[in-house]
Amino acid sequence: MSDPVKYQLDEQQLPRFWYNINADLPVPMDPVLHPGTKQPITPEELGVIFPRAVIEQEVSTEREIEIPEPVREILRQWRPSPLYRARRLEQALKTPAKIFYKYEGVSPPGSHKANTAIAQAFYNKAEGVKRITTETGAGQWGSSLAMAGSMFGLEILVYMVKVSYNHKPYRRAFMETFGAQCIASPSNTTESGRAVLAEHPDSTGSLGIAISEAVELAVQRDDTKYALGSVLNHVLLHQTVIGLEAQKQLEMADAYPDMIIGCTGGGSNFAGIVFPFLGTQLRGGRAVECIAVEPTACPTLTKGLFAYDFGDTAHLTPLCKMHTLGSTFVPPGFHAGGLRYHGMAPQISHLAKLGYIAPRSYNQLECFAAGIQFAQSEGIVPAPEATHAVRAAIHEAEKCRESGESKTILFNLSGHGNFDMQAYTDYLGGKLKDLDYAENEVAMALAGLPSIG
Amino acid sequence: MSDPVKYQLDEQQLPRFWYNINADLPVPMDPVLHPGTKQPITPEELGVIFPRAVIEQEVSTEREIEIPEPVREILRQWRPSPLYRARRLEQALKTPAKIFYKYEGVSPPGSHKANTAIAQAFYNKAEGVKRITTETGAGQWGSSLAMAGSMFGLEILVYMVKVSYNHKPYRRAFMETFGAQCIASPSNTTESGRAVLAEHPDSTGSLGIAISEAVELAVQRDDTKYALGSVLNHVLLHQTVIGLEAQKQLEMADAYPDMIIGCTGGGSNFAGIVFPFLGTQLRGGRAVECIAVEPTACPTLTKGLFAYDFGDTAHLTPLCKMHTLGSTFVPPGFHAGGLRYHGMAPQISHLAKLGYIAPRSYNQLECFAAGIQFAQSEGIVPAPEATHAVRAAIHEAEKCRESGESKTILFNLSGHGNFDMQAYTDYLGGKLKDLDYAENEVAMALAGLPSIG
Repeated sequence: MSDPVKYQLDEQQLPRFWYNINADLPVPMDPVLHPGTKQPITPEELGVIFPRAVIEQEVSTEREIEIPEPVREILRQWRPSPLYRARRLEQALKTPAKIFYKYEGVSPPGSHKANTAIAQAFYNKAEGVKRITTETGAGQWGSSLAMAGSMFGLEILVYMVKVSYNHKPYRRAFMETFGAQCIASPSNTTESGRAVLAEHPDSTGSLGIAISEAVELAVQRDDTKYALGSVLNHVLLHQTVIGLEAQKQLEMADAYPDMIIGCTGGGSNFAGIVFPFLGTQLRGGRAVECIAVEPTACPTLTKGLFAYDFGDTAHLTPLCKMHTLGSTFVPPGFHAGGLRYHGMAPQISHLAKLGYIAPRSYNQLECFAAGIQFAQSEGIVPAPEATHAVRAAIHEAEKCRESGESKTILFNLSGHGNFDMQAYTDYLGGKLKDLDYAENEVAMALAGLPSIG
Repeated sequence: MSDPVKYQLDEQQLPRFWYNINADLPVPMDPVLHPGTKQPITPEELGVIFPRAVIEQEVSTEREIEIPEPVREILRQWRPSPLYRARRLEQALKTPAKIFYKYEGVSPPGSHKANTAIAQAFYNKAEGVKRITTETGAGQWGSSLAMAGSMFGLEILVYMVKVSYNHKPYRRAFMETFGAQCIASPSNTTESGRAVLAEHPDSTGSLGIAISEAVELAVQRDDTKYALGSVLNHVLLHQTVIGLEAQKQLEMADAYPDMIIGCTGGGSNFAGIVFPFLGTQLRGGRAVECIAVEPTACPTLTKGLFAYDFGDTAHLTPLCKMHTLGSTFVPPGFHAGGLRYHGMAPQISHLAKLGYIAPRSYNQLECFAAGIQFAQSEGIVPAPEATHAVRAAIHEAEKCRESGESKTILFNLSGHGNFDMQAYTDYLGGKLKDLDYAENEVAMALAGLPSIG
C-alpha cells in the first residue's frame, strides 16, 4: 500500500464538541466593555445584537461546548476537511521538512467561514430571529452566511465593503444566488453610512464602516440580529473543529507539528487550527510554535497597540482589549481583503501578549509568488489571504533546507482563490506592487483610542 | 448514529482499473476513418497526434484497463469524490424520490475534466512528449490540463474559444497561474485560425475551430502532441472512475439507481457515471434508465444525424460515426459553453442508436432556475453545464411526487459554478433568454457532411 496522499476522517469522526481555550488560559482575559458606559458589558446588553446561546459561548469557561446535531449534520457535508501532506511541494523545495496543510476550501463557499456561519444561523433560527445583518470584506464571510441563511430559512443582509463590491461582483452574485441581499458600504441605508458619505462621498469603505452599518440595523429591529465572521470568542470557538480534526489526522500520520502557521485578519482561521494544540500545551502537553502571519500593510499584531478599542468605525460595538491599529485606520488596498482589519481577536491578542503566539508579516508580492509555487506543486490556487500562510510555510521549509532539520510544519489553507483570479491576473501581469501602511495614519488612529478607566 | 450525509470511500478504494464499455457492446462500433483516405485509420496514423498508450486504449476491447499508480496517486488528492443524498432538496420538492448526486466539483480545477487530464499528461510524459496542445470552451478542460501539465512538467498550450476567452478572463488567469499559455481562437498562430479570420474577422470562435488550431500545431512538431477533453473512447474510459465509485457508494447506501442522469456536451461526464452501470446491464444485470441531457440550442443527440463527421471545423481530425449537427454548425451563445459542440461521443451515439440511452433537452432559463433551487437546498452552485442534469433530476423527482413512486435517481454534478457567476448574474438580472438553434443552419451544416463509402 502506498503512502496516503490525504488523511481523511469519516464523517462520524467530526468533533462533537468545540474546544474553548478560555478554560486553559494562564491569565484571564480582560472584560468586554459597553461602548457607552465603558463598564463590563452584560449579557442583556449584548442580547440586543446577538442571540443568547452565542453570548453564553462568548463568556463561557467550559473547556468543551457541544456542537448541536443540526449543525454537525450540515458541517458533515464537507467535513472533516482533508489534511494533506504537501509531498510535491516538499520535493520542489528540496526540503527535509514535513509540510502538512489542512484544506478549508472544500466548503461550498470555499473557506473556513462556513464553519461558524452554519452555527450562528442555527442559534439565531432557534431563538426566532428572522433576519441577520452582517458585513463582508473579501466576500468569504458574506457568502458563507448567505448559504447558511438559505439552509435555515433566514433573511441575510450583507454590507460589502465598497471596494470589494466593485472589484468582486462574482462574490456578490454568489450571495444573491442564495437569496441574500448585498449592499455596497458605505450606503445611504443607515445613519452610519450616510455620515461617512457626507464627509467622504467617494469612500471605498472599510470593514469598520460596514460593521457599523450592519450593527445599526440589528439594533433597530427585534426580529433582526447581527453576526460577525471573526474576532469574537464564539467565532473562534466554532473554528476549533479545524484543529481538533487536524490533531486526529496527524495521529494517523504519526506526526506532531513543531510549528503551526495561519494567516490573521480578525484571527478566526488561525485560532481554529492553533487553539486545540495550544490548549494541549497550556495544560502541560507538548509545546508548539504558533506563527500568526499578517500583511505588512495591515500589521495589527506586529505593529499595533494592545489596548481597548472599538470593533467598528462609528463606535457602535463593544470595546475589546486587543491589538489594534486604531478603529479609524483604513488599510491600503492590497488584495487580501480578508486581512484588512484594524483589530485582532482578543483571545489571540491576549495569547500573543503572553508570548504563546509569534506574529510576523509579509508583503503581497512574495505571498502571491508563494501562492503560485504552491498551486504548481499541489494543484490548488490559494486565496490571497491564505497565500500569507503558504509564504511562511515555504519560508520555514527553506530554513530547514539550510539547517538540515526535518521539522514538521502544519499550516491552514483557509480557502481557495477561485473568486480571486483578478488578483492573480494583476500579479501575473506585473500590475501589483508591495504596499505599506502610512505610519502617520496609524499614529493618528491610535491617538484616537478611547481612554478607559 | 444519524444517517450519513455523504457516502465517502477511503482513498485506497479508488478504483484500480477503468471500465471499458467496448468489451460489452452488443454490436461493435463503426471504425474511425482517416480524414484524407476515408479508410479505417491506423494506430501509426493516430500516433502523429496522440501517444501510443492512449491509442491502444482508444481501440482496446479489454474490459478492465489498469490505472497507472502515478495517476492514482494524484487522483487520490480529491478522489474518491463524495456521493451525496440530496435530502434537503428532496424535502424542498416534497418528493418520495431518493435523489443521489456524485460531486465532481471537488477537484482543484472544479470539474470531472481533471480525471482524464492527469491520465493524459502522464501518458504523454512517459513517452517523452514536451508539449501538449488543446482547445477549451468554458475553460474547465483547459484548467484541468494546465494543472496536470504543471504536475508532470509539461508545456501546455490552450486554444480558448474567443467568446469564452473574453467572457471568462478568470479561467484564463487560472490556466496561467499553472504556467500554461492560453490563446484566443481563432488566432493568427495557425493556418486554420488565419483562414477563419480571413473570412470572418469578427469570429467569436467555436470548439471545432479551436480543435483545428490545436491539432495543426501538434502535427507540426515531434515533441508536441494533442489532447482532447471529451468525445473519444479513451477520454470516456478515464471518466469511468466516477461510476465505479458511485457503484460502491450506492452499495453503502443500500440503493440502486432506477435512472442515471448526466449532461452531455461531448459526453464524457455522462459516460463516466453511466457506463459502469450500463455495463452491468449489458452483461445481463439490472437495467437502468440512462438520461442524457443536452441544451435545446445545441441538440446533438435529440436532433442531430447519426453519421460520419469530422470533430473539427478545418477537417483535420479523423472521421467518427456519431450524432452530429454538422462540423460547421456554430451553436448560439448560451451560457453552458461546455455543451456547445456539434458532435457527440461515438460510444454514446452508438448506445443511443441501440436504445440504451434516452436523450432529452432543456432550455437555459429552466436550467438556471433549477441550479438556483439546488444551490439554496444543497449549498453548492452548479456549473451551467451541470444545471442541465439538475433540471432533469428535479423534473423526475417532481414526476415521482405526482405518481407517488419512490424512484432512486442518481445524477452527476460534474462541476461547480465558481467561475460562472457572470452567467448567474445575467440570469438573476433578467438578462438571459431562451435560445434556439437555427434549423436552416443545421440543415446547411448537415448538407456538408462527408460522403463515406
